[in-house]
Amino acid sequence: MVNLNIEFNTGSLLNDIREQKPIIHHMTNYVTVNDCANITLSIGASPIMADDIEEVQSIVGISSALVLNIGTLNRRIIAAMITAGKKANEQNIPVILDPVGVGASELRNETVRNMLEQIKFSVIRGNISEIRFIAGLHATANGVDASEVDSGNDVQTVIEVAKAAANKHGCMIAVTGATDIISNGESTICIENGHKMLSAITGTGCMCTSLIGSFCSITSDYFTAAISGILCMGIAGEVAFHQADHKGNGSYRIAVMDEISKLNAETIYREAKVYEA
Amino acid sequence: MVNLNIEFNTGSLLNDIREQKPIIHHMTNYVTVNDCANITLSIGASPIMADDIEEVQSIVGISSALVLNIGTLNRRIIAAMITAGKKANEQNIPVILDPVGVGASELRNETVRNMLEQIKFSVIRGNISEIRFIAGLHATANGVDASEVDSGNDVQTVIEVAKAAANKHGCMIAVTGATDIISNGESTICIENGHKMLSAITGTGCMCTSLIGSFCSITSDYFTAAISGILCMGIAGEVAFHQADHKGNGSYRIAVMDEISKLNAETIYREAKVYEA
Amino acid sequence: MVNLNIEFNTGSLLNDIREQKPIIHHMTNYVTVNDCANITLSIGASPIMADDIEEVQSIVGISSALVLNIGTLNRRIIAAMITAGKKANEQNIPVILDPVGVGASELRNETVRNMLEQIKFSVIRGNISEIRFIAGLHATANGVDASEVDSGNDVQTVIEVAKAAANKHGCMIAVTGATDIISNGESTICIENGHKMLSAITGTGCMCTSLIGSFCSITSDYFTAAISGILCMGIAGEVAFHQADHKGNGSYRIAVMDEISKLNAETIYREAKVYEA
Repeated sequence: MVNLNIEFNTGSLLNDIREQKPIIHHMTNYVTVNDCANITLSIGASPIMADDIEEVQSIVGISSALVLNIGTLNRRIIAAMITAGKKANEQNIPVILDPVGVGASELRNETVRNMLEQIKFSVIRGNISEIRFIAGLHATANGVDASEVDSGNDVQTVIEVAKAAANKHGCMIAVTGATDIISNGESTICIENGHKMLSAITGTGCMCTSLIGSFCSITSDYFTAAISGILCMGIAGEVAFHQADHKGNGSYRIAVMDEISKLNAETIYREAKVYEA
Repeated sequence: MVNLNIEFNTGSLLNDIREQKPIIHHMTNYVTVNDCANITLSIGASPIMADDIEEVQSIVGISSALVLNIGTLNRRIIAAMITAGKKANEQNIPVILDPVGVGASELRNETVRNMLEQIKFSVIRGNISEIRFIAGLHATANGVDASEVDSGNDVQTVIEVAKAAANKHGCMIAVTGATDIISNGESTICIENGHKMLSAITGTGCMCTSLIGSFCSITSDYFTAAISGILCMGIAGEVAFHQADHKGNGSYRIAVMDEISKLNAETIYREAKVYEA
Repeated sequence: MVNLNIEFNTGSLLNDIREQKPIIHHMTNYVTVNDCANITLSIGASPIMADDIEEVQSIVGISSALVLNIGTLNRRIIAAMITAGKKANEQNIPVILDPVGVGASELRNETVRNMLEQIKFSVIRGNISEIRFIAGLHATANGVDASEVDSGNDVQTVIEVAKAAANKHGCMIAVTGATDIISNGESTICIENGHKMLSAITGTGCMCTSLIGSFCSITSDYFTAAISGILCMGIAGEVAFHQADHKGNGSYRIAVMDEISKLNAETIYREAKVYEA
């Protein structure tokens, strides 16, 4: 594997998060919001959740990153998200998009199209189906939790989709799946960490986006930030599998949170399976 | 005990869920929604949550069952639920109702009455107080989490209420409590699995309804599906009690999720305590 | 330490909660609502969540305490909270306020000001930044989860702020932090229980408020009730740290819930570190 020093950078950024405790404003779905708050605390940042149009600008004003997740949409929240996103752009804090289930309804499609027009994103993270939509290609949503690389999507195809989406929108694209792919449009990184059990619990995609938001809040190198968030989730998912010792989904979910909170530069260096595409 | 072969059927249906990974559309309360998503994944199905009137028809369109849970109601969601329920009826996918806390407010009562008029349900699951309301009898709600058979409600009374409700609405009725009762209006089944600690954690009723929804999505025998969902919850609740080893409510909750994810035909066959009323 | 017999009173009230299983109506944020429901069950009370203006008066009507938590506000919920609060006042059931993040936005500030004008609270619990606002002093919100005593806020300062707020509003004030401070305006109590890991998981403040609500529901001595709720959380947080055995944030969170559910008069008597200021 090409040594990219990502492992070193991620460890160093992780230490920065823990020192600076940046505030990460989340506007996210009510299904996994508690998991997002807890993983943000576990990586060392400080979550704040607020979704009303009357206050999102104030909350953006005290935050270091904004995470937008469209898992459970309605018109009230859509308007507030766009207001918050614009404010974050004005303030030059990074905005991270998790386009959950885009492709599954016109409401989600229209919302994402509007967001892409009105907000400049630093990173967009999704599964291959969602990122296909972002790239302007045909998406088939058959389940919000489908985070596996779709059958018929070999790694090379995913890389092409990620590159296309990154170039189209001028931002980092992260596609999570059996192999995670992160592209800035030019360079593309593959991560082979993670465990298939991550798709047996809800919210691992959302939590991964929260981690990316946490990393983006303390560096302007959003490519490394995106890689770092995904790398941390993948390593925690792997180590947790051994810790949870086949006890089942509930214990695995707790173990993932445990491992994020205990993650350090040494473990990242030892466990990272990162290479350039 | 009469051998109904339910144990065999449940085990076989469980395997079907795990193979087919059906999508279960939930419109549910924000208190236990994460638990519902995780238990749906743990039984092997795929949860999707969407509650906006603009997209529920699309989401129903890609789903194999619809679960409606009225735990935290408001007018926006009520309208969306009725739209979704009608669409599911048109599409012939099963609709499962959890009338949480009906009897406790006129808003809940009116909502349930409207739903019963406009939507054809496959299964309705509740505690005895809620099912009394469904049967058109006097309900006394003194707590949403009251899942014990009310004092003064002996098993025979519960059976009569369940039968009456099933005949009134032409659907399966499941009453969870110390003894679980499932009736199709003609036959009635009693389940003696479960553990009283299930009422010491929130969401076990809601999660049970999610399991019923998961089983309904892969068979048109909704009577067996309703029995199977409740049987799985009861067995997991029992086994979990031994696994959690008196550690307390938090550990028990995790153990219940673990046991659902590890449940198999053999355990169901060994542990089932099912008999005809 | 001055012996206040708080340890005895708390243990006795805890037994009362477990016998009476009072219903605690929560109108709270969607981030930690599941934790609030579970901790309410773990202490022995029965949670009910309802936030629509059309039903909150009915739900207050069957409840023994009302908890208002402004963590995720919007206009629909604000109006419902004020309606519920007034109804609770009419019925003479205690109302407990958790002014999450007040100071961080004008929406939160205005909401809290309106609430303080229109509702009589029994207890208000917050971190020092939030209670400064309640006292009419300058608040600096830099993160909803900031529950540490702010640097620059020594215990003596916190005591003065708590007293001022208690006198201003004629209610009990509880400030949670490294040292917890509870004041009725005249007497002030300090609690040295708790563990710094409580601020590494989301919802411990909200859960603490749920515990206070549970205690308030079974006694009219709201000073002792406020102290008791905080004391239980602190002791559980300490014991949980040893139980979770450095496994990480996920396990610690589960252990806190376990310990609340296992708490008894004996443990409270043995572990309480309570003294008069």
